[in-house]
Amino acid sequence: MPPTSPAKPTVCIDANRVAVVRRSNLGGILKLLRDHGPRSRSQLATEMGLPKATISTLVAELLERSLVREGELTRNQGLGRPGLTLVLDGSGVCGLGIEISTTCVRGLALDPLGSVVFESQRPLDTTRLGIEEVFDITGDLARQALAEISSRGIQPLRLCLVTPGTVDPDRGDVVFAANVAWHDTPALAMLRQRIGRQSVDLRIENDAHAASLAELTASAAGMGNLLLLTGESGVAAGVLIDGKLTRLNGEVGHAPLGPADTVCACGRRGCWETAVGGNALLSRIADAGDTVRDHTVSLEERLAEVRRRAIAGDARTLDGVRYVSDHLCHGLSVLTDIVGPQVIVLGGYFSFLSDYFVPAAQTALNARVMTPVMASTRVVGSSLGFAAATRGAAEIALGALFDDPTLVRPPSDA
Amino acid sequence: MPPTSPAKPTVCIDANRVAVVRRSNLGGILKLLRDHGPRSRSQLATEMGLPKATISTLVAELLERSLVREGELTRNQGLGRPGLTLVLDGSGVCGLGIEISTTCVRGLALDPLGSVVFESQRPLDTTRLGIEEVFDITGDLARQALAEISSRGIQPLRLCLVTPGTVDPDRGDVVFAANVAWHDTPALAMLRQRIGRQSVDLRIENDAHAASLAELTASAAGMGNLLLLTGESGVAAGVLIDGKLTRLNGEVGHAPLGPADTVCACGRRGCWETAVGGNALLSRIADAGDTVRDHTVSLEERLAEVRRRAIAGDARTLDGVRYVSDHLCHGLSVLTDIVGPQVIVLGGYFSFLSDYFVPAAQTALNARVMTPVMASTRVVGSSLGFAAATRGAAEIALGALFDDPTLVRPPSDA
Repeated sequence: MPPTSPAKPTVCIDANRVAVVRRSNLGGILKLLRDHGPRSRSQLATEMGLPKATISTLVAELLERSLVREGELTRNQGLGRPGLTLVLDGSGVCGLGIEISTTCVRGLALDPLGSVVFESQRPLDTTRLGIEEVFDITGDLARQALAEISSRGIQPLRLCLVTPGTVDPDRGDVVFAANVAWHDTPALAMLRQRIGRQSVDLRIENDAHAASLAELTASAAGMGNLLLLTGESGVAAGVLIDGKLTRLNGEVGHAPLGPADTVCACGRRGCWETAVGGNALLSRIADAGDTVRDHTVSLEERLAEVRRRAIAGDARTLDGVRYVSDHLCHGLSVLTDIVGPQVIVLGGYFSFLSDYFVPAAQTALNARVMTPVMASTRVVGSSLGFAAATRGAAEIALGALFDDPTLVRPPSDA
Repeated sequence: MPPTSPAKPTVCIDANRVAVVRRSNLGGILKLLRDHGPRSRSQLATEMGLPKATISTLVAELLERSLVREGELTRNQGLGRPGLTLVLDGSGVCGLGIEISTTCVRGLALDPLGSVVFESQRPLDTTRLGIEEVFDITGDLARQALAEISSRGIQPLRLCLVTPGTVDPDRGDVVFAANVAWHDTPALAMLRQRIGRQSVDLRIENDAHAASLAELTASAAGMGNLLLLTGESGVAAGVLIDGKLTRLNGEVGHAPLGPADTVCACGRRGCWETAVGGNALLSRIADAGDTVRDHTVSLEERLAEVRRRAIAGDARTLDGVRYVSDHLCHGLSVLTDIVGPQVIVLGGYFSFLSDYFVPAAQTALNARVMTPVMASTRVVGSSLGFAAATRGAAEIALGALFDDPTLVRPPSDA
């Protein structure tokens, strides 16, 4: 927006709207500082199309809450009086992400600059434990996280729980998660019960959706249409269009893109993940009793072992990888024609074998490009791997700050 | 929003924002009147959370532009002074949709109340004619439409062109349309050249995307997540999430969901439309020379004949319909697991045989529901058929009014 001239007329609007506009402007300043670095009040006034006096008032409010601090003197490109640049601070607040996966529960808290202020992981055999036990362990981790964060004088703005399956963010429920056999699970209520009265806002999101947001943050810019394929035992997708999460189902693992006769954990036949899921690969390349199928060993270690065997040229491993790869390429071709992403990120367990899957998928997609005028979808391996969903959850939790910085208590209220 | 109290403080903001807020409030009033019927100024003030004085000023502006008119006296549910209800008018403005399909060019103009103010259709063998000829005929229709509309004193606010293929709305181009063999076609520039200097804003959209919007409007409420499958010779989809168009690729007809060995018009193998497209059905059920394969007969008439043969129990026709139906069910199952729509509308050529396709698809989707806690996707036949895309285009064009009612010239400027 162009800078405003002081000669322009002003109009009066009522206070209901003012609070909304003020919160949005406060958040807008923080986003500018996060995405584009330190800048002066004059620069902010120009970029936000607001009078400098208004910016000064807003900045004062952010300074009071320690969400920005003053940095170096700037000459504002040689024009006007010099001013101090403003820098995003916010070391006193964070967003907390908690992930329940099929093999563990993870917690990660990020401050607005992306620094990790808490991180923890515990093994959790979600598929075998009762749901109450799963939430007892999850609640323990959440309580520990909140206590540690608070003891360091950091305010957790929101906790975002991510789980497999279809979630209902409005009700706070997991509607259905085939691989852990949850039906209509009131996840946020169960978590709230266990963390007690602590005043932290709770949200829920699907794990693959959250992970796709983290992949977008971790990737270079210009990948606004991104599809993340992820999974531990099964397969799920998260789709971003113009950088925004879509409420697509994402249950691609259960789409009938696999061998028609194979029975899936969900009770149906032909699901894609019966051919391309982590469990499918492991049971194809090793007999029961083999270390890569030993659930007491972490999945990371087992996948690292699979990769070692593949590199060593083990025929059974390479056959299994090729089988998964063929079915992966077919399903990704279908997904590409339906969704049309600029980038497909192979995350989760696929990222451990990306040397094999990425080139195969790229070749398959290139071969199906209809015309040279349309850019081919680029396939990349995730650098976040299994950490993406928890990181995405923390980013969603941190979104509370940019939506409404007035959630942060000023020192007088603390 | 709750009604505002006159005691609340007011704050001054600058004029840049005021114009944006004013346009948005003017459009908001029109949307309320369109979606929820006539209402008083007091009711509008309550619903929009604005002071009654502000509403009166905004309404005066809409009255001046003849976009609303005053109706009956209302007692406002017994409270306060009686006032006149306001009714959406706008009989002086319209949105114009123009569709280039593989068999014809269609034009439709709608006023804000949904009344048809112009309608025309001309046969167009888009696949055989040169692109300049196609745009000559399209330009003729557009000029005729604009002339007729203007001669009746109606202001066309926008013209939305819809075409098959992948479009780039920002550049105004068709990036690629396999079935008409267009590559990087500057569609809006070619249309602008032919309609001359007439000051009408031009937009472009994919035909299936536009059609899905029209299907949502035509359907009952509560179908915010809708997938429309449509097509004449081929197949395309439009996906709405929460009632909003997604920028999904929608090239589902060319997703590898068909028989692996069949060559498609796009040059690749295995495309879904080689099994489920209109051309696939017609060439399966009739030899060359049969009336249903005669391009000089309108597609509507040929499909009506196919339907008659199916009802009469013609074995070859029923075999062909069953073949299409089987492949349709498989692809819809995949689409459902990926997209997760509440409703799938079978439009385009499918709507002529919906007695056959709808029950088969519903049975297939019901059989794949993973759990009773998740509602099954409902399958319905389109009531708009081939008319949906043009209607959607006109609705998109009409969106200009609700985005910015100040586009409508007041009588003094006319």
